[in-house]
Amino acid sequence: MTLKLTYFDIRGLAEPIRLLLNDQEIPFEDNRISREEWAEMKSTMIFAQLPCLHIGTETIVQSAAILRHLGRIYGLNGSTESETSFIDMFSEGLRDLRTKYFTMIKTDYEDGKEAYITETLPGELLRIEKLFCTFNNGENFVSGDKLSYADYALFELLDIHLILTPTALNGTPALKRFHGRFAERPNMRLYLNKRAELNPFVSGNGKQ
Amino acid sequence: MTLKLTYFDIRGLAEPIRLLLNDQEIPFEDNRISREEWAEMKSTMIFAQLPCLHIGTETIVQSAAILRHLGRIYGLNGSTESETSFIDMFSEGLRDLRTKYFTMIKTDYEDGKEAYITETLPGELLRIEKLFCTFNNGENFVSGDKLSYADYALFELLDIHLILTPTALNGTPALKRFHGRFAERPNMRLYLNKRAELNPFVSGNGKQ
Ligand SMILES: N[C@@H](CCC(=O)N[C@@H](CS)C(=O)NCC(=O)O)C(=O)O
Ligand SMILES: N[C@@H](CCC(=O)N[C@@H](CS)C(=O)NCC(=O)O)C(=O)O
Repeated sequence: MTLKLTYFDIRGLAEPIRLLLNDQEIPFEDNRISREEWAEMKSTMIFAQLPCLHIGTETIVQSAAILRHLGRIYGLNGSTESETSFIDMFSEGLRDLRTKYFTMIKTDYEDGKEAYITETLPGELLRIEKLFCTFNNGENFVSGDKLSYADYALFELLDIHLILTPTALNGTPALKRFHGRFAERPNMRLYLNKRAELNPFVSGNGKQ
Repeated sequence: MTLKLTYFDIRGLAEPIRLLLNDQEIPFEDNRISREEWAEMKSTMIFAQLPCLHIGTETIVQSAAILRHLGRIYGLNGSTESETSFIDMFSEGLRDLRTKYFTMIKTDYEDGKEAYITETLPGELLRIEKLFCTFNNGENFVSGDKLSYADYALFELLDIHLILTPTALNGTPALKRFHGRFAERPNMRLYLNKRAELNPFVSGNGKQ
């Protein structure tokens, strides 16, 4: 089965998918298109947006649906219904914070960044840390002993907040340790080193 | 297994869940709390928000995670991986439109309603209609012959747009037919009639 992930040359909504595929050593074409190519392609996309995953003969759009699909087919979606819903609920919580982050980045960076860092972020991260500590005191993965797609989404969310402010995780030690530990997975290390050379922006407007 | 759904006395994010439970004749406690009760409860909620589903001994928050959980346990999540991802992708597309709707309702109702109706909505609905017609020319359910949780989310999204403007679906005949057909399901009819008497607001600020 051939996989092709089409997105812009930024991290954005595709990065958790790229992390999962790289870390799991699943070969895929990382198709990064220009704004000019996008202008031609936009009207052909189901919701006129990216990312888009071509997988065999199927086409899946919507970043969260792509991640959950990969989670199901590659065994990264929990082993019981209870784990699967926990992973899902956790990921939805991450999405809420990510939405706040991207809204600030896109509409209010100059005026809103400080308030986001000092007022919004700490409470949000504390709630995520608390939930993260449900299993194994947060010494392993989101759903306990077993890796899931939510770990990639969590890593990316923490990582972009460390770009926003290097002290982002100082109030949430379990998340900070997770971030450090996860970055040391051999395939993650390889990918992160390769990415550091190209250094793509987190978002389309270059603010981060 | 006892089910208790806690939310405010509005339709909002809980309504597709309520539709599913009522239509499927799954008994549940429809726990609608006041703002005063919420002030007491907020800090106990995983992400300090509602809806929340108590199901047996488990607690699930995040409306989309709740809907997918119910989809999985009650056979409303497709029969193959391909159906499951289609349903998921479709629902995520609905969510994008719903987010635009609620953003307008909450931040820009007076100035933005007309532009939303004439400029934003038609293109969005056309894309949803096109995807909806993937199976059976849209003469049945989102994923073809078989009902899924996405049908409840679709029905509610169409329904709130018909409140916004009664002509909302005139450019998308397949969606309009779906809306009419789905409202005639016996259990839906019962629930919708009962709801009409109480007539809860779509959103917390009473605009709709
Ligand atoms: N809900 C969608 C949102 C997709 C989205 O917002 N894509 C943006 C880039 S992050 C896009 O395609 N922008 C270009 C455009 O809309 O023309 C998802 O999660 O995939
Ligand atoms: N992503 C969450 C969002 C939940 C949400 O925004 N809940 C609102 C009501 S629609 C809420 O609890 N508001 C009260 C508050 O934040 O104090 C979900 O889908 O469940």
